[in-house]
Amino acid sequence: MNTFGHIFRLTSFGESHGLGVGGIIDGCPPGLELDREFIQQELKRRRPGQSRITTPRDEPDRVEFLSGLFEGRTTGAPIAFLVRNRNQQSSDYDHLKDIFRPSHADFTYQQKYGLRDYRGGGRSSARETVARVVAGAVAKLYLNGLGVKIQAYTSRVGNIALENDYRMYDLDRVEENMVRCPDPDVAEQMDQLINEVRHQGDTIGGVITCVIKGIPVGLGEPVFGKLHAALGFAMLSINAVKGFEYGTGFDVSGRGSEVNDPFYDDGGTVRARTNYSGGIQAGISNGEDIYFRVAFKPVSTIVKEQDTVNVHGEETRVKAYGRHDSCVLPRAVPIVEAMAAITLLDFYLLSLTKPK
Amino acid sequence: MNTFGHIFRLTSFGESHGLGVGGIIDGCPPGLELDREFIQQELKRRRPGQSRITTPRDEPDRVEFLSGLFEGRTTGAPIAFLVRNRNQQSSDYDHLKDIFRPSHADFTYQQKYGLRDYRGGGRSSARETVARVVAGAVAKLYLNGLGVKIQAYTSRVGNIALENDYRMYDLDRVEENMVRCPDPDVAEQMDQLINEVRHQGDTIGGVITCVIKGIPVGLGEPVFGKLHAALGFAMLSINAVKGFEYGTGFDVSGRGSEVNDPFYDDGGTVRARTNYSGGIQAGISNGEDIYFRVAFKPVSTIVKEQDTVNVHGEETRVKAYGRHDSCVLPRAVPIVEAMAAITLLDFYLLSLTKPK
Amino acid sequence: MNTFGHIFRLTSFGESHGLGVGGIIDGCPPGLELDREFIQQELKRRRPGQSRITTPRDEPDRVEFLSGLFEGRTTGAPIAFLVRNRNQQSSDYDHLKDIFRPSHADFTYQQKYGLRDYRGGGRSSARETVARVVAGAVAKLYLNGLGVKIQAYTSRVGNIALENDYRMYDLDRVEENMVRCPDPDVAEQMDQLINEVRHQGDTIGGVITCVIKGIPVGLGEPVFGKLHAALGFAMLSINAVKGFEYGTGFDVSGRGSEVNDPFYDDGGTVRARTNYSGGIQAGISNGEDIYFRVAFKPVSTIVKEQDTVNVHGEETRVKAYGRHDSCVLPRAVPIVEAMAAITLLDFYLLSLTKPK
Amino acid sequence: MNTFGHIFRLTSFGESHGLGVGGIIDGCPPGLELDREFIQQELKRRRPGQSRITTPRDEPDRVEFLSGLFEGRTTGAPIAFLVRNRNQQSSDYDHLKDIFRPSHADFTYQQKYGLRDYRGGGRSSARETVARVVAGAVAKLYLNGLGVKIQAYTSRVGNIALENDYRMYDLDRVEENMVRCPDPDVAEQMDQLINEVRHQGDTIGGVITCVIKGIPVGLGEPVFGKLHAALGFAMLSINAVKGFEYGTGFDVSGRGSEVNDPFYDDGGTVRARTNYSGGIQAGISNGEDIYFRVAFKPVSTIVKEQDTVNVHGEETRVKAYGRHDSCVLPRAVPIVEAMAAITLLDFYLLSLTKPK
Repeated sequence: MNTFGHIFRLTSFGESHGLGVGGIIDGCPPGLELDREFIQQELKRRRPGQSRITTPRDEPDRVEFLSGLFEGRTTGAPIAFLVRNRNQQSSDYDHLKDIFRPSHADFTYQQKYGLRDYRGGGRSSARETVARVVAGAVAKLYLNGLGVKIQAYTSRVGNIALENDYRMYDLDRVEENMVRCPDPDVAEQMDQLINEVRHQGDTIGGVITCVIKGIPVGLGEPVFGKLHAALGFAMLSINAVKGFEYGTGFDVSGRGSEVNDPFYDDGGTVRARTNYSGGIQAGISNGEDIYFRVAFKPVSTIVKEQDTVNVHGEETRVKAYGRHDSCVLPRAVPIVEAMAAITLLDFYLLSLTKPK
Repeated sequence: MNTFGHIFRLTSFGESHGLGVGGIIDGCPPGLELDREFIQQELKRRRPGQSRITTPRDEPDRVEFLSGLFEGRTTGAPIAFLVRNRNQQSSDYDHLKDIFRPSHADFTYQQKYGLRDYRGGGRSSARETVARVVAGAVAKLYLNGLGVKIQAYTSRVGNIALENDYRMYDLDRVEENMVRCPDPDVAEQMDQLINEVRHQGDTIGGVITCVIKGIPVGLGEPVFGKLHAALGFAMLSINAVKGFEYGTGFDVSGRGSEVNDPFYDDGGTVRARTNYSGGIQAGISNGEDIYFRVAFKPVSTIVKEQDTVNVHGEETRVKAYGRHDSCVLPRAVPIVEAMAAITLLDFYLLSLTKPK
Repeated sequence: MNTFGHIFRLTSFGESHGLGVGGIIDGCPPGLELDREFIQQELKRRRPGQSRITTPRDEPDRVEFLSGLFEGRTTGAPIAFLVRNRNQQSSDYDHLKDIFRPSHADFTYQQKYGLRDYRGGGRSSARETVARVVAGAVAKLYLNGLGVKIQAYTSRVGNIALENDYRMYDLDRVEENMVRCPDPDVAEQMDQLINEVRHQGDTIGGVITCVIKGIPVGLGEPVFGKLHAALGFAMLSINAVKGFEYGTGFDVSGRGSEVNDPFYDDGGTVRARTNYSGGIQAGISNGEDIYFRVAFKPVSTIVKEQDTVNVHGEETRVKAYGRHDSCVLPRAVPIVEAMAAITLLDFYLLSLTKPK
Repeated sequence: MNTFGHIFRLTSFGESHGLGVGGIIDGCPPGLELDREFIQQELKRRRPGQSRITTPRDEPDRVEFLSGLFEGRTTGAPIAFLVRNRNQQSSDYDHLKDIFRPSHADFTYQQKYGLRDYRGGGRSSARETVARVVAGAVAKLYLNGLGVKIQAYTSRVGNIALENDYRMYDLDRVEENMVRCPDPDVAEQMDQLINEVRHQGDTIGGVITCVIKGIPVGLGEPVFGKLHAALGFAMLSINAVKGFEYGTGFDVSGRGSEVNDPFYDDGGTVRARTNYSGGIQAGISNGEDIYFRVAFKPVSTIVKEQDTVNVHGEETRVKAYGRHDSCVLPRAVPIVEAMAAITLLDFYLLSLTKPK
């Protein structure tokens, strides 16, 4: 089940240590000019090796478009693309051939499929998200034309968290530091924590917040295509994600009278005075900012030795070698944005099927 | 978009003040004996008027099966069912005809569809979940035969929360109190809080925890059919839900070395010594308990007067009359279980399409 | 798999000898005024007992709408409906309980599902098409507003066939005779043949031609949503259909130079001088009339005695009692139109997702 | 809409004059050993230049698998593949840039998408079927293990047709001649006709018959997933196909008593004495041979000059240069088989979701 979406659809393929990762985008509106530099820039935001925080592997990640374009524009035909893998040393994984690494895909894949590509996680590797970033970049290019802006940032790493909500920060500064946190001081603390964790051979999780501005009223398809449910599904499909909340989310301390959003007349436009709803009411966008938070667990691959079992059922111990991400949050920011973009464009196109 | 699922599919219909609510279950395995009493019992768990906590409206909710059964068993044909509405006084809603109630579906439905059934929320009413409970009961009947057990409970109301995780409670005692909380003392506190909130004409939200035992290894379809993403989507499609987390969820304080689940050999079976993963690894069930938490906002309908705008764009004030739920959590417990059951049966059937 | 369509979707339910037959229409554009009389009229066209040609069972077929309407108009919510069965004498079928009638669903249903509702065909009965006619009538109401006109007629019964193509006949006269053939003389011959066949206790098949005028250019979604493939699928899903052809179809005698359709300039509009293509080129409507032909086999239920086997594998003989259709063609005309209407509205709505 | 299937799914991409054509196969059972030589052989059957009948362009068509395999076997992950284009001279098509060729995709694509890739048909080219042949070969490899055998052949070219049904021919001899007709004498006449047509700069259509043996009882999903409807949809999605019929099809001359298939007891197995049903009853396979016929129109590209209109609405004339297929039937034989294989494997996997 490697297809996402209803009208604007991504079908993805690829493994971490095969030829590469790619996908087919179907249902993209025709006539869209594909800005290759922008797409390449989005891929660069995702790739490791941007700093000491993330893995220093060399992964240039050039996208090759295989179909669907004519003279630089989309034709309405499916857009296939490929991002080749580089430098993957499959032999690095030979010692893992028979081992179920704790909290990895090794055990469940082996049980489900009867065999597995043990090299670097194979299909379960986060490298798969390359395809999402490419499709998300295409979606962003279209959404830009509609005035939609999607910005995510790291709002928490371990126990270090931003205290305020997104309105208090200048989100255009997110890219200024390596952890992609809009508050430079907190970013510095997060950076230190991540560094510390790395030196311990360990990993750490956190939370990414995503904000979407400029969404038209009316996106979302009750009752089984509610916009927030689709966004939640999109986020939960990203590797290592453990939770999703929008609007007030898990903060259930407020009474109804405190968290209802009163409407007012903003010069002929109906607006909400507060936005506890998170821009979505009854599953449909109401024109206010959409915002949500996504929880990521620590990466499972750690350099510390752990107990486990091998494919023969024998107990053993395992540890990772080489350099690995100690915190994926910074790299996951563009992935969150990409999945949001894909979802929103899909629901925008769906909304066109309700002519009035 | 009123269909949920891939193989075991529910298509639902109905409004709070129309003839009734119902659905069509497609893809149910043939030969299943439908225990009507069990289904009726599940509906009863959902209905209001069970106590002073929930609304005292008389709503017997009898399910009528319209098709798909022969001599008490499913035939493989679509199972249609209807639960008629009763006692709905549409005139109660005449004063709401032109008003957009804060944080309700009024505004977004009007904008999306150009018209709306303003009586009691129409399609956006939580009464729609009746169809889910019926389909969920059918799914539970099948899952029972596989040894799967699904139990949800109220783990938080406002700021009153259970302190321990599910292993510390006897979940078979959940039905013993009106708030459906397995700890009688905390249940009492929750009950008092809800009562207090009701006297203030206000509402309050909370959190429901759901635990699934006995799930076979191998359910879940990477990468866009991950089991937890499907469960998250299912939960987020329920009215008033604002968040979903499984396993460690938003608690991102632990390091990788602390929250990885070491495997061990349990007499020939591979088991995990801890279960921070929440029973799902890389999107596939690993045989351990699945558990997740679902956040509900306070009900939007409050007796207190609020600022708002009418369909003509004029600012006005609105308040609800009559008796309404001040807290939906207790009634939502069977709905959460139902959506979990539908999702799990669907993915169980999907897992059969991978013959080895 | 009882759902048809992508955006405008029908999920159907019901058996010939259960409570009734019905469905849920999802994705219908909001604000459509539902003309009940028209829908009822379409149902009447389908029902048996209109003449001596078709079965004289009394089947008033009143549609009850259960949801999705408000003040007579569609709201965008799912439209559920039910048409109750009447006068079905299940005991009439007791003698068939253990018998696999030749060329019926008895054997394949029993093998696939392990049990079956043997009363009157159960789910496999042509009575299921009642749901299609209702959904088709709703689709027609919307298509009417777009200027689309769908007309089908009986073009062949056994060896009696209309000699000319549809342009030679006045299709508005189709309803003037009982066989629904636009040529009164041929209609008379068909009528006589059907009568003769009935007296022999036998049945006969034929061909229905369908013509669609006023379709906009651009409907159809290459490569796996070609408009003619979708129409073919729709027609082949109707009971007793054995073939579908559009444009030149199985007449492959012409050379390319003879059956290509030259374009010309019709006062600023590009038109095709001939229409061997049948209104669809490369899977997309080109604005010319769409026409296609649908082959129906003779009804399997015959009064003559036949060899067969029972559920115990024993050879036996079987014959039908009572009165049955000796030719379904006349009644199938509105069913063909209905499936065409559902398909075309679905693809019209899909075409809106390609904003330029 | 470039995805076909429910469980075993092909998403295809590519244009005739872009980089290449390919696809992603999702849902293939894991552990299948991919016989590359067999797949390559199937591609070879499809390619032009095999004889003077089809186009002599050099098109080696090597498939590259990009993902989804590990040590030669499928892993359950999506299988992406690419077949590169060769020798395409885009400049050959410059003169067609502004012209709508009669009965081609030029006009409808331009109207639907607002732009088009005019080089060699772009996405609408029959070269797209390369992806189908690859996916079909993978499906055949799995079906072989189930004992299913799929064989198609040319049964008619223009007015030259085989007189008998498939039982009268040795289908293993189909590959012995260039037109893929199992009767050598008729093959010779077809060959001569095609040659004659080519010398006239014209093209000709025909009919392909397909026979499937060894299909288990129980494939097909009533009422909107009937097996023959799915096969019909699959065939109608192939370029140039105008009609589909199975069993008695458009031959409606027989009475019910003549074309019903009596069951008998074949040593403990229920079998049908005749097979007018074509192996499918009520949409479900009954274990007898499935057979159907597919009508192809003459290729639209002809060397003769034709009237048409250009994109500016001006009337003009057009003719093709170079060498083109004068009859696609022989090359379409493996495409018909491929689409049958994809459909049957998909429905086989679906049938596993009905545990009894």
